[in-house]
Amino acid sequence: MSRIVMKFGGTSVATTERIRIVAARVAREVKAGHEVAVVVSAMAGETNKLVAYVDEVANGYGLLHDYSEYDSIVASGEIVTAGLTALALQGLGLKSRSWQGWQIPIRTDLAHGKARIDEINGELLIEAMEEGVIPVIAGFQGVNQLDRVATLGRGGSDTSAVAIAAAINADRCDIFTDVDGVYTADPRIVPKARKLQQITYEEMLELASVGAKVLQTRSVEMAMKHQVRVQVLSSFEDKPGTMMVEEEEMMEHELVSGITSDRNEAKVTLLELADRPGVAAGVFGPLNDANINVDMIVQNISVDGKTTDMTFTVPRIELARTLALFETQKTKLGYKAIQTDGNVAKVSVVGVGMRSHAGVALTMFQALGKESINILVISTSEIKISVLIEEKYTELAVRALHSAYGLDAQ
Amino acid sequence: MSRIVMKFGGTSVATTERIRIVAARVAREVKAGHEVAVVVSAMAGETNKLVAYVDEVANGYGLLHDYSEYDSIVASGEIVTAGLTALALQGLGLKSRSWQGWQIPIRTDLAHGKARIDEINGELLIEAMEEGVIPVIAGFQGVNQLDRVATLGRGGSDTSAVAIAAAINADRCDIFTDVDGVYTADPRIVPKARKLQQITYEEMLELASVGAKVLQTRSVEMAMKHQVRVQVLSSFEDKPGTMMVEEEEMMEHELVSGITSDRNEAKVTLLELADRPGVAAGVFGPLNDANINVDMIVQNISVDGKTTDMTFTVPRIELARTLALFETQKTKLGYKAIQTDGNVAKVSVVGVGMRSHAGVALTMFQALGKESINILVISTSEIKISVLIEEKYTELAVRALHSAYGLDAQ
Repeated sequence: MSRIVMKFGGTSVATTERIRIVAARVAREVKAGHEVAVVVSAMAGETNKLVAYVDEVANGYGLLHDYSEYDSIVASGEIVTAGLTALALQGLGLKSRSWQGWQIPIRTDLAHGKARIDEINGELLIEAMEEGVIPVIAGFQGVNQLDRVATLGRGGSDTSAVAIAAAINADRCDIFTDVDGVYTADPRIVPKARKLQQITYEEMLELASVGAKVLQTRSVEMAMKHQVRVQVLSSFEDKPGTMMVEEEEMMEHELVSGITSDRNEAKVTLLELADRPGVAAGVFGPLNDANINVDMIVQNISVDGKTTDMTFTVPRIELARTLALFETQKTKLGYKAIQTDGNVAKVSVVGVGMRSHAGVALTMFQALGKESINILVISTSEIKISVLIEEKYTELAVRALHSAYGLDAQ
Repeated sequence: MSRIVMKFGGTSVATTERIRIVAARVAREVKAGHEVAVVVSAMAGETNKLVAYVDEVANGYGLLHDYSEYDSIVASGEIVTAGLTALALQGLGLKSRSWQGWQIPIRTDLAHGKARIDEINGELLIEAMEEGVIPVIAGFQGVNQLDRVATLGRGGSDTSAVAIAAAINADRCDIFTDVDGVYTADPRIVPKARKLQQITYEEMLELASVGAKVLQTRSVEMAMKHQVRVQVLSSFEDKPGTMMVEEEEMMEHELVSGITSDRNEAKVTLLELADRPGVAAGVFGPLNDANINVDMIVQNISVDGKTTDMTFTVPRIELARTLALFETQKTKLGYKAIQTDGNVAKVSVVGVGMRSHAGVALTMFQALGKESINILVISTSEIKISVLIEEKYTELAVRALHSAYGLDAQ
């Protein structure tokens, strides 16, 4: 007998009919002798509807959101699904009850709209399971020390599921979603992409951070920290998905696990910036204060010893705000001009294998060069190499790299 | 400075636009120097939508509702409105926050779907108001001693409002609704009906119990018990409504305050029932066990000393269930036949004045007789006389009585 957390996303519980399908899937695991706790998202579309209400009211006054009210409002969608799923399980003759975040409780920090889970008390859930009751937990939500409802940010139900799996010592956390696993590349771009049976936490984390939005990044961090075995699988098909494991558990080691692309960044270059100590802090301090995430950064060597060019990427939707910000800082920073490019894409190669193998980057540069794709910026981490290229070459680059690393399906 | 509870029903908060109108109304009272706490229902239609979800899931399995899940699900509608109303008040430059039932807490008994409020801790609300924060409370909901969400039954937000008014020692509880007060009769039936400035708790209770569904009956009972001054007024027009007060406070005493009619009952007669001690218990015990409310009861005098006829009314929607029930009891009860009539109406005359005046009933019987309306059953209480008549005479009877008691507007 295993203890399993099963998490179902918004499309899996989009209608009462789908909720009944979810219940049947849960029932199968229960009948196979497993102890199951269920985590659910809001019905697809519900959270957007609630957010729209908040916007309508707030914008009517030109008001910024009060995120404590926002949280209380949008968290209600998961309450509904949790109750309905518990009813559906009862309909199949099983014992079940729903849990809201505050009832467990799932304690969060004081940040609203993107709270972090501080602690989950698993006692009541374990007690329920030992009495044969299937707990159905409203995902995405917790309660902070002021007893206000807090939400965990978009995709937060993944994090709820993993955190609950850790709190109740689950053997596995199954995340049911509308894709059937993690692929070596986006199958819409690379028809020869293969589904991975296993992937390490680190690889998953890098994939999540470069735009392969299978799971909320934070849920992967949490799984890694608490060593929760997480499986990503389809809620519509009945076959194994991709299991996140520790590196030592990997059955087959590949040099590279996946190729991803991300079109959500824009390139910004500050030309002829005065080259003096503290200039980087002068550039990135204001961006940080304005909550604009900087990803890739390149500083060219100063030719004349007096000025330098600084290139970096920001989220594309923040480009206008970034420009406005530097306009106000121009005199202070003393740069000559600012260049921007919104038509860029970041292509990344991810794999734990590159830790122990030389030449992985060279393969990448050669493959792109062979296709005459110019590299604008390069950035590397221990298990990832990312390059910025012109957006129009995105698909070509991903396919070329997928072949170059021998990932194509036979 | 007064402390006021303002309660807004579903039609008053049906859209985000209406919620902003509600906020403006609250702001006016605040700017007039009053301390205000707000209670809101779900947006019109939301509760029905949630109940439909529950039905879809439950009926899919031929399942009866699990009312603890039902409560958790349907109570979410008020959470949304409370948050949105708090945001709208913030938009007007006021400090405000929402409260869910468990956050206050509003403690209820263990009945689900129609829980009763045991206790409300007003401390946090009073503290907030003293800091200049307007609390917006989700109506209709509380939390029981098992920390499960409980709802108070349809119209329960009225009861929430009155109970909160009692808990925070409010000077007044204004119930904003889609009617502008309590009338001497339904203006759709009696064009000459007048709005009452004041009404006693007892009269309001009798009106509520005979089908004038302005307020949930329980909210009136609670107002009477805690002597909360409750005003019923329109959320769409800006004028005084009807104030519920104690009898001694009444400025003008009328013999009769109102005439009402109720078409939701059906008449049942058991013919030639064995006339022996305990027969009434034998008849009404099973109805009570089946949760079927009996209203009017008449037992004719036994002519032969052996059998008697027993007539009573039940809710019309329970008629089929009532018949099925007596079918199973026929041998035991030993009646000869059962007659039913679903085409009846109950017409009632209500007024505290009749306590001290004779002849009130006579006026009623004469007025109906003059219109050749046959009285099928009569039932009286201290401040109410009800008669059962053929349904087709309903409007005629109400208008005749309205004139007979001198209630017609000039």
